[in-house]
Amino acid sequence: MKVAIIFGSPSDTPVMKKAAQVFRELDVEYTAQVLSAHRTPELLQETVKKLERCGTEVILAGAGLAAHLPGLIAGLTLIPVIGVPINAGSLGGMDALLSMVQMPRPIPVAVVGVDNGANAAYLACQILALKDPLLQERLVAFRAAIKAHCARHPEKVEL
Amino acid sequence: MKVAIIFGSPSDTPVMKKAAQVFRELDVEYTAQVLSAHRTPELLQETVKKLERCGTEVILAGAGLAAHLPGLIAGLTLIPVIGVPINAGSLGGMDALLSMVQMPRPIPVAVVGVDNGANAAYLACQILALKDPLLQERLVAFRAAIKAHCARHPEKVEL
Amino acid sequence: MKVAIIFGSPSDTPVMKKAAQVFRELDVEYTAQVLSAHRTPELLQETVKKLERCGTEVILAGAGLAAHLPGLIAGLTLIPVIGVPINAGSLGGMDALLSMVQMPRPIPVAVVGVDNGANAAYLACQILALKDPLLQERLVAFRAAIKAHCARHPEKVEL
Amino acid sequence: MKVAIIFGSPSDTPVMKKAAQVFRELDVEYTAQVLSAHRTPELLQETVKKLERCGTEVILAGAGLAAHLPGLIAGLTLIPVIGVPINAGSLGGMDALLSMVQMPRPIPVAVVGVDNGANAAYLACQILALKDPLLQERLVAFRAAIKAHCARHPEKVEL
Amino acid sequence: MKVAIIFGSPSDTPVMKKAAQVFRELDVEYTAQVLSAHRTPELLQETVKKLERCGTEVILAGAGLAAHLPGLIAGLTLIPVIGVPINAGSLGGMDALLSMVQMPRPIPVAVVGVDNGANAAYLACQILALKDPLLQERLVAFRAAIKAHCARHPEKVEL
Amino acid sequence: MKVAIIFGSPSDTPVMKKAAQVFRELDVEYTAQVLSAHRTPELLQETVKKLERCGTEVILAGAGLAAHLPGLIAGLTLIPVIGVPINAGSLGGMDALLSMVQMPRPIPVAVVGVDNGANAAYLACQILALKDPLLQERLVAFRAAIKAHCARHPEKVEL
Amino acid sequence: MKVAIIFGSPSDTPVMKKAAQVFRELDVEYTAQVLSAHRTPELLQETVKKLERCGTEVILAGAGLAAHLPGLIAGLTLIPVIGVPINAGSLGGMDALLSMVQMPRPIPVAVVGVDNGANAAYLACQILALKDPLLQERLVAFRAAIKAHCARHPEKVEL
Amino acid sequence: MKVAIIFGSPSDTPVMKKAAQVFRELDVEYTAQVLSAHRTPELLQETVKKLERCGTEVILAGAGLAAHLPGLIAGLTLIPVIGVPINAGSLGGMDALLSMVQMPRPIPVAVVGVDNGANAAYLACQILALKDPLLQERLVAFRAAIKAHCARHPEKVEL
Repeated sequence: MKVAIIFGSPSDTPVMKKAAQVFRELDVEYTAQVLSAHRTPELLQETVKKLERCGTEVILAGAGLAAHLPGLIAGLTLIPVIGVPINAGSLGGMDALLSMVQMPRPIPVAVVGVDNGANAAYLACQILALKDPLLQERLVAFRAAIKAHCARHPEKVEL
Repeated sequence: MKVAIIFGSPSDTPVMKKAAQVFRELDVEYTAQVLSAHRTPELLQETVKKLERCGTEVILAGAGLAAHLPGLIAGLTLIPVIGVPINAGSLGGMDALLSMVQMPRPIPVAVVGVDNGANAAYLACQILALKDPLLQERLVAFRAAIKAHCARHPEKVEL
Repeated sequence: MKVAIIFGSPSDTPVMKKAAQVFRELDVEYTAQVLSAHRTPELLQETVKKLERCGTEVILAGAGLAAHLPGLIAGLTLIPVIGVPINAGSLGGMDALLSMVQMPRPIPVAVVGVDNGANAAYLACQILALKDPLLQERLVAFRAAIKAHCARHPEKVEL
Repeated sequence: MKVAIIFGSPSDTPVMKKAAQVFRELDVEYTAQVLSAHRTPELLQETVKKLERCGTEVILAGAGLAAHLPGLIAGLTLIPVIGVPINAGSLGGMDALLSMVQMPRPIPVAVVGVDNGANAAYLACQILALKDPLLQERLVAFRAAIKAHCARHPEKVEL
Repeated sequence: MKVAIIFGSPSDTPVMKKAAQVFRELDVEYTAQVLSAHRTPELLQETVKKLERCGTEVILAGAGLAAHLPGLIAGLTLIPVIGVPINAGSLGGMDALLSMVQMPRPIPVAVVGVDNGANAAYLACQILALKDPLLQERLVAFRAAIKAHCARHPEKVEL
Repeated sequence: MKVAIIFGSPSDTPVMKKAAQVFRELDVEYTAQVLSAHRTPELLQETVKKLERCGTEVILAGAGLAAHLPGLIAGLTLIPVIGVPINAGSLGGMDALLSMVQMPRPIPVAVVGVDNGANAAYLACQILALKDPLLQERLVAFRAAIKAHCARHPEKVEL
Repeated sequence: MKVAIIFGSPSDTPVMKKAAQVFRELDVEYTAQVLSAHRTPELLQETVKKLERCGTEVILAGAGLAAHLPGLIAGLTLIPVIGVPINAGSLGGMDALLSMVQMPRPIPVAVVGVDNGANAAYLACQILALKDPLLQERLVAFRAAIKAHCARHPEKVEL
Repeated sequence: MKVAIIFGSPSDTPVMKKAAQVFRELDVEYTAQVLSAHRTPELLQETVKKLERCGTEVILAGAGLAAHLPGLIAGLTLIPVIGVPINAGSLGGMDALLSMVQMPRPIPVAVVGVDNGANAAYLACQILALKDPLLQERLVAFRAAIKAHCARHPEKVEL
C-alpha cells in the first residue's frame, strides 16, 4: 500500500477518519496506526523502516499539542510526510501547527490546515497521481464533479 | 523541467533563492517566475496551464502578507503545490502562514516554515524522487553526508 | 441590483444573513451566491464579469479559514469589495481576518470585524448612498433612530 | 475635495504619505490633517462636520496603538471611513488592527492592511470612481499598466 | 455618587454586575448606564460633563470588541477611568484588551483583566479610599477577612 | 511623597524615566527604587510597609517578562498600584501585559500600555488630583495646552 | 513527604487532581494545599519555610490567569518548583503560560503544558528518582508498560 | 559529569553559553554537544544512552523553531530534561516555546523562558543540589549575595 496514516493518540481518530474517507472515495489503499513519537520511539523507527521496505510513497501524520510526530518521521525517512495539526488542547491547534511547520532544514514536513485530515489525503493523492495515471484521472473527475456541483449551487442560496 | 518556482513579489527573492540553491545542489532543474495572484490573475492561469502541458510535477509558491498565491495555484491544477510563507510585514509571517495553511478542502497546499525556501525545495525533491531513482540516490547521499557532518560536530563545541 | 453578496461555503450563511437583513431593512436590493474561490475559479471570474456588466457597485464577500475570496474578487474588478472574515475553525477567525486584510497593493479589500455581516452591509449602504440621496436619507433616519433608542436606554439599567 | 486624510500623530506621516502619493498619481485631490481622537475630541467633531458640509466622500483615517480614530469618526458621520492600522509599538500593529476592525454594529470601518496607506487610497479611489467616470478610466488604465508591467516581469527573474 | 458605571451594550451586563456587587458589599454608591461610544457620542459627552459636575471620582467603563468606550471617556475628562475589557466575540477578549490598554499619551485608561468587573470595582474602591477613611477601614477589614478565609482553606483540600 | 516608582530591573530605566519626566512637569514629587519581586521578596514587603507608613498614595510598578512585581505589591497593600508592562524580550511585551492585567480578584492592578511609562504617571496624577485641587488645576491647564497645541497642528501637515 | 502540591484556587482542582493521581499510581506521597499568591502572601511564605524544614524536594504549583504562584514560591526557596499553567479564562491559558515561563534570572520555574497536571507529576517523580532507586524502578516499569501498551495498539485502529 | 548540555544548532550557542557560565560560577561540571533531533536521530539515541550510563542527572536541551529536541530526549530517558526555547526565526520564539511545553503525558519537559539559558542552569543546579549539600550551600550563598546586591541597589536609582 502506497499510503500510511500514523497518528499520535486515539483521540485524533475523528480528524484522521476524514483522511481515510477521502482515500476510500478515490480508491487509494492505506494502512493506519496509532504510534507515539515520544512513548515508543523505537517502535516508530521500526515502523518507518518497514514502511520504506514496503514501498510506501506518502505518510500522513496527525498529532496535537507539541506535535512532533510528523517531524520525527520526516527525520527517519525520505518518504514525503504530510502533517495534520490537530486542535487538542486550549490553544486552538496553534501549538500543533507551529510544532509541525517550523521544521529546520533539511527535514521538511508538508503541513495542511488545523484538523484538516481531508486536505492531507487530497495532497497525498496528488503526489501519488504523479506516478499513477488512473488515480490522476479519478482526481480530474473528482475536481470536475466538485466544480459542477459548485456551479449548480448559486441558484439555491436564500438569505 | 519538473519544478516551477513562482513568487509574488521581487522582494521575496532572498527566500526563494534558498530553494533554488537546494535544487542546484541536488541537480534538479527549475524555472522561476514572479507572478502576482491578484495583479495578473489571467497570466497566472495561463502560466499554470502551460506548466501542466510541460509536465511540471511540483510547484513552489512563495508569498507574504495575505499570501493567496499558493492556494490560488492549487485551485487551478492538480500538480502538488508547496507554499512558502514569507515574513513580509510587521506580523512575523503569521499572516502568510495562516493564509496558506488553512486552505479549505479539497484544495490542499503543502506548507513549510516561514521563510524556509530550502525546506520547500527538499520537500519537492522528495516528491520527485518517488519517480526518479537517481534523485533518490542523491537525496540518500545528501542525508548521509548531513549525518556524517553532524556526527563530527559534537567534538567542536565549546561554551 | 447594486449589491452582490458572495460567500465561500453554505456554512457561512448565518453570518451573511445578518448582511441581508440590513439590506432589507434599508430597502437595498441584493443578490446572493455561494461561490468558491478555489473550487470554481473560472465560475468566479465569469460571475464577477457579469456583475460588472450589470452595474453592481459593491460586492460583499464572506469567507472563513484561508479566506481568499474577497481578495481574489478584488483582483478581478474595480468594484469595491467588502470582506467579512468568518470564524470557521479553531483559531477564532484570526486566520480569515489576516487572509483578507493583509492584501498587497494595489488590490484593497475593505475588511470589517469577524462574523460582522451587519457592518459589511452598513458600509455598503454608506458607499451606495454617495450616489443615492434617498438611501442617504434612510441611513440618516436609521442613525437618528439608533441614537434616540440608545438615549432612552440608560434609564433602564439595573445591576 | 472629495477625500480627507486624517491621522493621529505626526509619527504616522510615512504611512499616510503612501496614500497621498497614490492620490497624486491618480489625480485625486485630498486634504490632510493630524487630529487626535483623544486629545481634541471637540476639534475632531467640528472637523468631521465641516468635511460633511464640504461634500467629502471618503475619509482615510490612520492610527496606531489603541487606534480609535477611524471608529470615532465613523460614529460621527455617514461618510465611508477607511482605517489604516499603523505599526506603532511593540505588537506589530495587531493592537491597531483589532482596535479598528472589530467595530460594533452599525458603525463600520473599512480596514486595510497594517501600514498599507497605499491600499487605503486605492480603495478610496474605487469608491469615488462609482460616481466619477474619468477616475474610473484612470483606474482601469492603472490596473492595465500594472498587469502589463507584471506580465513583462517573469523574464527577468534569476535565482 | 462617587462612582459611575458605563458600558457599551446590554450584553455586557453580567460582567458589570460583578462590579456592582462589589460596590454593594463595600457600601459604595454607584450609578449605571448603557452608553455607546459610537452610536451616541454626543450623549456620552453630555453624560461625562454631568458626571464631572456631580463630583464623580471614578468611572468604570466596560466594552467588548473594538472597545473604545473607556478611552473615549478618558479623553473627555480628568476623572480616572477604569476599563474592563469584555470577551464579546471569537477572539477571547484580546481585541478589547488591546483597544483599551494601548492608549496614546497623555490619555491613560486603568485596565483590569478580561471580564474582571470585580477587580475594576476593587480598584475604584482603593482609589476612593484615599479620601474616605471609612471606606479604607472597610477595605482593610475585607482583605483581613479574605486572608482569614484563605488561611482556613488548606485543611480542606483533597485531591 | 505621594508617589513611589518601583521597577524590577535597571534595564527598565528608560521606560520609567518617561514617568518621572511627567511627574516633574506636573510638579509631583516621587521616589524611585529598583526592587525585584523574586530576588528580594522580603525587601519588597518592607518597602511597601514603609511606603504605607509614609502616606504614599499611588505606586507605579514597571516590569518585563513574567512581570509579577505590580501584582505582588498589590497583594501587600491597598495603595492603588499602576502597572507598566515593559517589552523586555522577544514577545513584544505581551508576556508582561498578560502577567499584569489578568490579576485574580480581589487584587487589581491598573495596567497601562506596553512601555507607556508616561501614561502611568498621568493616571497617577489624575488619582492624586482627586484630593489635590492645585494638581487638578495643573492637569486642567496641561490638557488645555495639549488641545491648543493639537488644534494648531493641522495647518502644518504636508504629505 | 517529598512533594507538595499548591494551587491558587479551588477551581484548579480538576487539573491538579491529575497530578495527584499520578503520584498515587507511582506510590509517591504528597500534600496538597490551596494557597493564594496575592491574597495570603505571608501564609505562603510561612508554608514554604515549613516545607523547607520538612524536607520537601519538589513543589508543584498550579495557577491560572496572571499565574504568579509558582514564580513567587521559586523566589522564596531553592526547592525546584514545577509550574502548571491552567486555562482559567478566555485566553486559552496563554496568560498563565507566559506568566510562569518568562521568569527573570536567577529564579527559574520548570513549566509544563497548559492544564497538564499529569506531566508535572511525572517530572517531579523523575527528579525524586535521582535519589530514590525504588521510585526509579517504578518509573522504568511504568514506561515499559506504556511502551508495551502502545506497541499493542496499532493492530486495533480502524478508520 | 552530572549535566549535559545539548542543542540543535551552532547558532544556539550564545543562549546556551549563558547556561555554561552559570555552571562555571556554581562550580558544576558539564558536557556540551550540538546534536540534531531530526538530522541524526540515531546519534541522539546513542548519546542519550551513553549519558544514562555515565550517571548524568540533568539534561539541558536548547532548540529553536519546531523545537523537538528536548521532547525527543525526554522520550528516550527518565533523566529530567530542561528545555530552553530559542528565538530563532520571525515568531519571537513562540514556536519553540509551544513545541517544547505542550508535551503529551507522560513525557514531561521542564521548560524555562525564551532564550533564558541561565535559568535552565539555575534549575538544573537546584535539582542537583537535592543530592549535593555542597552545591546547595553554594546556591544558598549565591541567592544571599543576589539579595544583598539587590538590597544595596535602590539607593542608586535616578530617573
